[in-house]
Amino acid sequence: MRIAVLHGSTREEGNTEALTEIVLDGLERTDIYLRGKRIKPIHDQRHEEGGFDPVDDDYDGIVQEVLAHDILVFTTPVYWYGPSGILKNFIDRWSQSLRDTRYNFKEAMAKKEAYVIVVGGDNPRIKALPLIQMLKYTFDFVGMPLEGYVIGKASRPGDIKGDSRAIAEAQWLNRELKKKAGC
Amino acid sequence: MRIAVLHGSTREEGNTEALTEIVLDGLERTDIYLRGKRIKPIHDQRHEEGGFDPVDDDYDGIVQEVLAHDILVFTTPVYWYGPSGILKNFIDRWSQSLRDTRYNFKEAMAKKEAYVIVVGGDNPRIKALPLIQMLKYTFDFVGMPLEGYVIGKASRPGDIKGDSRAIAEAQWLNRELKKKAGC
Amino acid sequence: MRIAVLHGSTREEGNTEALTEIVLDGLERTDIYLRGKRIKPIHDQRHEEGGFDPVDDDYDGIVQEVLAHDILVFTTPVYWYGPSGILKNFIDRWSQSLRDTRYNFKEAMAKKEAYVIVVGGDNPRIKALPLIQMLKYTFDFVGMPLEGYVIGKASRPGDIKGDSRAIAEAQWLNRELKKKAGC
Amino acid sequence: MRIAVLHGSTREEGNTEALTEIVLDGLERTDIYLRGKRIKPIHDQRHEEGGFDPVDDDYDGIVQEVLAHDILVFTTPVYWYGPSGILKNFIDRWSQSLRDTRYNFKEAMAKKEAYVIVVGGDNPRIKALPLIQMLKYTFDFVGMPLEGYVIGKASRPGDIKGDSRAIAEAQWLNRELKKKAGC
Repeated sequence: MRIAVLHGSTREEGNTEALTEIVLDGLERTDIYLRGKRIKPIHDQRHEEGGFDPVDDDYDGIVQEVLAHDILVFTTPVYWYGPSGILKNFIDRWSQSLRDTRYNFKEAMAKKEAYVIVVGGDNPRIKALPLIQMLKYTFDFVGMPLEGYVIGKASRPGDIKGDSRAIAEAQWLNRELKKKAGC
Repeated sequence: MRIAVLHGSTREEGNTEALTEIVLDGLERTDIYLRGKRIKPIHDQRHEEGGFDPVDDDYDGIVQEVLAHDILVFTTPVYWYGPSGILKNFIDRWSQSLRDTRYNFKEAMAKKEAYVIVVGGDNPRIKALPLIQMLKYTFDFVGMPLEGYVIGKASRPGDIKGDSRAIAEAQWLNRELKKKAGC
Repeated sequence: MRIAVLHGSTREEGNTEALTEIVLDGLERTDIYLRGKRIKPIHDQRHEEGGFDPVDDDYDGIVQEVLAHDILVFTTPVYWYGPSGILKNFIDRWSQSLRDTRYNFKEAMAKKEAYVIVVGGDNPRIKALPLIQMLKYTFDFVGMPLEGYVIGKASRPGDIKGDSRAIAEAQWLNRELKKKAGC
Repeated sequence: MRIAVLHGSTREEGNTEALTEIVLDGLERTDIYLRGKRIKPIHDQRHEEGGFDPVDDDYDGIVQEVLAHDILVFTTPVYWYGPSGILKNFIDRWSQSLRDTRYNFKEAMAKKEAYVIVVGGDNPRIKALPLIQMLKYTFDFVGMPLEGYVIGKASRPGDIKGDSRAIAEAQWLNRELKKKAGC
C-alpha cells in the first residue's frame, strides 16, 4: 500500500500541512508539493482533430508518480470555498490524461482510494461542503472511492492546534491508514 | 450600468461563450478573456510580515477593469465539477486585493451585482450545484449579490444549441439585463 | 404517457400550485393532493422479524395510483429549506413499499420519470438546492431519473406571478411535456 | 446550561439513539421523543386574516419545553436523505410559533445553540450533506448557531458500534459539551 500526498497549499508548513502530518504520522508516503511544480492550466483541446498538444511542464511526471501509488491523499486549504488554484489546475489536466494512450488513466485511478484533507477559516464544516461534493463527483467520474475526509478550521499559522475536533478526526484517520498499511 | 464579462473558458467560441452571447445579445459590455491573460496562482502571504509581494502578471490590470464596472458576469465551463483553473486562479488572488491599499476591494465589490453562466457535460443541473454554492459563498464574502445563474448542458462544440431550456433561461436573463440597462 | 402530480402544499391554490398549473397547462393528469390524505409517519420496522405492520391510512391507495402513471411531478413549497412534512411522510413510507410483496416497487419506479417543482420565499434558487439534491438522491435510490426541476420565488399569495424567470422555465417545461405526451 | 434532545427516530434504541447516548454520556438532559408525540403537519395559514388556528396536539408543549433549554440536540436517522417526517413536521410548525404572540420565538431560539446527530446507511458522510445544509439554513433563519454535527453510518440494529469514526467524533463532542456544562 503506497501512499502519495498531493499537497495543494501554497504556503510552507501551514495549517493544512500540519493537519496532514497528524493523519500520516508514522506512515511512509511520497509527498508531492504542487506549489513547487509547474502545471499549466488545461487548454481544452478535447474536440480538436489531433487532440491535445503535448505540454512542456511537470504535469506528466506527477501523474506517473500518482499512478505508482495506491492511496491518494488530496490536501488543500479552502481558498474561496474551493480547492487552491494549483490543485484545480492539476485536476483539470486529468481531461488530458483520460485521452493519453500511454496509460489507461481512468481504469488505473479506479483501483486507488482517495482521502481529502481541507482546512479553512470561514466555518469550513459548512462552507467547505460544496468543495467536498465537487471532489466526490470528480473521484466518482474516474471510479475512485472517496474513503474519508477531514475538515479543519484554521486561519492564522498554528491555528489548527486549537481545533481539537479536527485533530481527533486526523488521529482516527491515522489509525485507519495504519491498519490498511498493516503497521 | 457597465457590464464586464469574465470569460473562464480555455477554448475559443465554445458552448459557454455561445450561451453567454445569448445572455448579452444587444448589450454593451467589456469582454475579459482570462485564457489570454497571465494570472499566476496565489502565493498565500497573508500572514507574512510584509504581506504580499507584488506579482508581475496581468492580474492587477484585470481587477482595475473589473472595478470600473457595475455588473459582473462570471462564465466558466464546468471542469471537473468546479470552475476552470484559470477562473479559480483569478478568484484566489482576490485575497491579495483585499489587502491592497490602493483600493477598498471589498467595499467596491459589494456595490456590484454578479451573474454566473456555467456549461457542463455531465448532468450539470445537479452536478454543477456545488460550483454554484461555492461561487455564492465567494460573492457573499465580499458582499456582492448573486443576482442569477444559468446552467447549460453541452459537451461537443455546438451542443448548447440543443439545450432549449438553457437557451430559454439565457433569453430571460437577456431581457432582465436589458431592463436594468434601460435598453 | 400518464402524468401524476403529487401536490405537497398545505394551502389551496397557493404559489406552488399556480406554478404547477403553468407546467401542466393543457396536459391530462391525475392530481393527488397530499393535504387531503391521511398518511402516517413511517414506523421503521425494517429490522423486525415480521417486517412492517399494515397501516390503516391512505398511503397504499396513493402508491397504487402513482404506480399507474409514467411521469411523476413532485411539487412542494419550500418549508424550512426542505419538502413539506406531508410530502416527506409520503416519501418516508417508500421504505415500506420497498418490502411490499404485492409489487416490485423499485423496479416499477425505475421505469418512471420525475420532475420537481418547488417554490420558496427565501432565496430559493440558492437555499432550495439542498432540497433538490435530497430529492435527487431519493430518486437515484429507486433508479428513477430526475428529468427536470423548476424553482420559483414567492411568499405571499399571488407572488409567483412576479417571478418572470420561474414562469419562463415553467412554460419551457410545459412545451417539453407536451412533446413527450405527443400533444 | 440545560440540554434538550429532540429525538427524531421512529425506532426505539436504534443506531441514532446509541450514537446520541455517547454524545450525552454523563450529561443531564431532557429527552424529547418525537415518536411518542402527536404533531400534526403544518397547515399554512400565514396569509389568512386570522392567522393560524390553534391546533390540538402536543406541539405547543414541546416548544415550551424546548424554550426552557439552552442547547438543543437534534437527532434523526437519515430517511431518504432528509430528516425523518416526524422531525420535519415539528420544524415545519415553527412557522406557527414565529407568529405566536405568547413568546418571541425567533429571539428566544437565537440565544440557544444547536447540535445535530444523524445516522444513515447509504454513504451518509456524502449523501447526508444536503440534510446538514438544510438544517443549517433552518437554524440561520432563527439566528441559532449550529455548533457541530456528527454523521454516523449504520443500517441494521447495532451497526453503529462498527463506525469507529462516528464514535470518535461523538466522544469528542461529549468532551466539548462537558466543558460547556462545567462538568
